[in-house]
Amino acid sequence: MTLAACEVLEKADVIIGYKTYLELIPAFLEGKEVISSEMMKEVDRCRTALATAETGKNVALVSGGDPGIYAMAGLVYELARESANSCRIEIIPGLAAINSCAARLGAPLMHDFAAISLSDLLTPWDLIEKRLAAAAMADFVTAIYNPRSKRRTDQIVRAREIFLAHRAATTPVGIVTAATRENEKITVTCLADMLESEIGMQSTVIIGNSQTFTWNDLIITPRGYSGKYRL
Amino acid sequence: MTLAACEVLEKADVIIGYKTYLELIPAFLEGKEVISSEMMKEVDRCRTALATAETGKNVALVSGGDPGIYAMAGLVYELARESANSCRIEIIPGLAAINSCAARLGAPLMHDFAAISLSDLLTPWDLIEKRLAAAAMADFVTAIYNPRSKRRTDQIVRAREIFLAHRAATTPVGIVTAATRENEKITVTCLADMLESEIGMQSTVIIGNSQTFTWNDLIITPRGYSGKYRL
Repeated sequence: MTLAACEVLEKADVIIGYKTYLELIPAFLEGKEVISSEMMKEVDRCRTALATAETGKNVALVSGGDPGIYAMAGLVYELARESANSCRIEIIPGLAAINSCAARLGAPLMHDFAAISLSDLLTPWDLIEKRLAAAAMADFVTAIYNPRSKRRTDQIVRAREIFLAHRAATTPVGIVTAATRENEKITVTCLADMLESEIGMQSTVIIGNSQTFTWNDLIITPRGYSGKYRL
Repeated sequence: MTLAACEVLEKADVIIGYKTYLELIPAFLEGKEVISSEMMKEVDRCRTALATAETGKNVALVSGGDPGIYAMAGLVYELARESANSCRIEIIPGLAAINSCAARLGAPLMHDFAAISLSDLLTPWDLIEKRLAAAAMADFVTAIYNPRSKRRTDQIVRAREIFLAHRAATTPVGIVTAATRENEKITVTCLADMLESEIGMQSTVIIGNSQTFTWNDLIITPRGYSGKYRL
């Protein structure tokens, strides 16, 4: 958590969020009006936050990770626009999965990278495949969000195939599950073997570029392309 | 700054960093051994940090942004590996330009995105062009790092051309210079007009995808592709 996030929570009259996230910050909830909700109720949660803020209260809507990366910020703005809500909105950036997972794996994101979600709930699968192929072909380090759920098990298999068409089977792959939580699990593997490791709903998968190497079970992408780069 | 970063600085015996960054955290330097250095001395700074840590001291090497995204983490590991240094290294993630610039612009990173540096110092320009074309073609929201320096002025012009071949001239573009600093400047423009705004060494440029829109001078990328998405 950032100091800025702490400050905002301290000043808030009302704190709204998904129950599991609010349970992580009990000290901030004392003496506040707290509205906690179940998973999958993002739209309701944002509407409640906006409506409460419009009554003049200072409302903090809590999001996991960074609200600005695949998260709640956009929904808040979309709903404010739709309802012509005039409250002042400020996004407090935080650590997204790419930040925390990269730190846990070593230094995989030292060079150009792409982030791709494999969830086809709101995005046509064809477009996701096109992005996977583009990222693989242009040698981007690639962070894969939502790699697998109970319902969606084939997408990560297909993603791996696409990368294998452009990148060596030995390319380092990192899997971070539940980063910074109690049940955090970190796996360093490679494109050939990655499906033998557990990949779940809380996992982020990072695939190295053609220069990425492993050292002491860490994944490191050099800053430069060989030949130009001297330490 | 994160609470974790504060904790690490408080526990450190020695704090090492680029002068300008250390000047931002005077309270943490009191009573510590402080080694500050000039810009462009990254390799020396990392070597000093590693050598000092090997003497048994607890060393904090300070980096701007997130050390794990286009920053010092990789260099530290590369030098530790080269010198067979056995000190324990921990990367404390922070807010990268993508996190803070996205927050300032609204919610541009709600969907798949790519980060591309236009610096051709350590990367062949052909590869950078290939990545720009791949990101443009596959409709990634794209964050451009190091868009322009005194020496390099053409790259951003070429990057814009590449995007215009795949995306509408009205595509929203955000330019954030010196995010969260005193001289912060935020510009919301579009592909057609972006070169009329100031873009410099401290700027990050974010180009929206085909669905990105502006509202109240903010840049918002919807979570889904229209047709599948209902609020």
